[in-house]
Amino acid sequence: MTVELYYWPGIQGRGEFVRLALEAAAEAYVDVARGDGGQARMVRLMADKALAHPPFAPPFIIDGEMMVAQTANILLHLGPRLGLAPEDEAGRIFTHQLQLTLADLAAEAHDTHHPVGVGLYYEDQKPEAARRAAEFRERRIPKYLDYFERVLAANPAGDAHLVGRALTYADLGLFQVVEGLRYAFPKAMTALEARWPRVIALRDRVAAAPKVAAYLASDRRIAFNQDGIFRHYPELDA
Amino acid sequence: MTVELYYWPGIQGRGEFVRLALEAAAEAYVDVARGDGGQARMVRLMADKALAHPPFAPPFIIDGEMMVAQTANILLHLGPRLGLAPEDEAGRIFTHQLQLTLADLAAEAHDTHHPVGVGLYYEDQKPEAARRAAEFRERRIPKYLDYFERVLAANPAGDAHLVGRALTYADLGLFQVVEGLRYAFPKAMTALEARWPRVIALRDRVAAAPKVAAYLASDRRIAFNQDGIFRHYPELDA
Repeated sequence: MTVELYYWPGIQGRGEFVRLALEAAAEAYVDVARGDGGQARMVRLMADKALAHPPFAPPFIIDGEMMVAQTANILLHLGPRLGLAPEDEAGRIFTHQLQLTLADLAAEAHDTHHPVGVGLYYEDQKPEAARRAAEFRERRIPKYLDYFERVLAANPAGDAHLVGRALTYADLGLFQVVEGLRYAFPKAMTALEARWPRVIALRDRVAAAPKVAAYLASDRRIAFNQDGIFRHYPELDA
Repeated sequence: MTVELYYWPGIQGRGEFVRLALEAAAEAYVDVARGDGGQARMVRLMADKALAHPPFAPPFIIDGEMMVAQTANILLHLGPRLGLAPEDEAGRIFTHQLQLTLADLAAEAHDTHHPVGVGLYYEDQKPEAARRAAEFRERRIPKYLDYFERVLAANPAGDAHLVGRALTYADLGLFQVVEGLRYAFPKAMTALEARWPRVIALRDRVAAAPKVAAYLASDRRIAFNQDGIFRHYPELDA
């Protein structure tokens, strides 16, 4: 059964965590909203009052009889089938815990350019964004990435992966977050990255995995841009 | 095996979603940080570099051999054993999806008083908070609670619960969010609540469930206060 992915077609955003998992597993999927009329179909579907399990927002997937939303929940559902979740219950729960922590980081990264609210443009909240971004760069990025460095160092199976000895969707998510932070805050990341050798080594291994590398080089990978979660405003990276 | 819950002892916060589930199921648990020396024990435990599965932040639980963090993940893990998750996979995944959406709502409620960052006091970000709170009251609360009203209306098993025909941790979470919003934004909620008759009816049923009612009347239920997620600043409810 081909998975249908529904997400805003112009950005990586939260949908990218799902795309990376599907691509790394070479799973057949359709990125519906990127096809002809696909975004209108997505919007109509979300508004369908007959849905028993409606999504609050994209991304969501249709997988056979199931419609599943919330990024981390989609990965929880797909992970075992994609071979991107540990076999044991403790490992699965910890992988999900890490994904939820990455989701928190991504939400905070988004709030650096939208601290006052998602209904306003960045241009209408620039002073507030500057304050929030300073705290994010100086305190939050280090706190989060110190944590992931610690998790890698503490993995009883070695520091090549966050959980166990094989690739999971949490490894892919950490790759995506590092890429996003590098795009949004290149100066801050250049100054800080030496603190996290294991995180950066994992990022490099994920980027070099053949299926991931092929995806990143394809036109299926949307470039980072100023509409997504991670945006590069030089004044927020000062 | 008695569950050990670790969370900041002075607030409901994110820990309250876990407490409500444990209480509604009459599960034996210890609220460790509320006991003598418990908070220091929690902080020491979090810093233990030997942990294979460390938490990023409270709440976390110790459940036999497992240490589990991230509120929604704790509920995912405990839900089936507490009888607070559906039996079928589709129902379990949808319950988790709803809990993650409630977590997003709670994070946005928190950001109304801390839009610029968690490292600063509210008093240092009052103008920004006023802007963010206005958007939250006018657009975000309606968007979220309209969604939960829709989910109740669309439940094929009837509108008494969010998923299926029995109480789940998502129902408890929706109760908690309504309580928090009423505490933080009493004027806004009074003006809006008639829009969500099913949500309010569910809130009332949860509050009246004997084990929940007994918990709410006990000193185990910490009162809402100005240190938690939901805070009442009259100027943010204007």
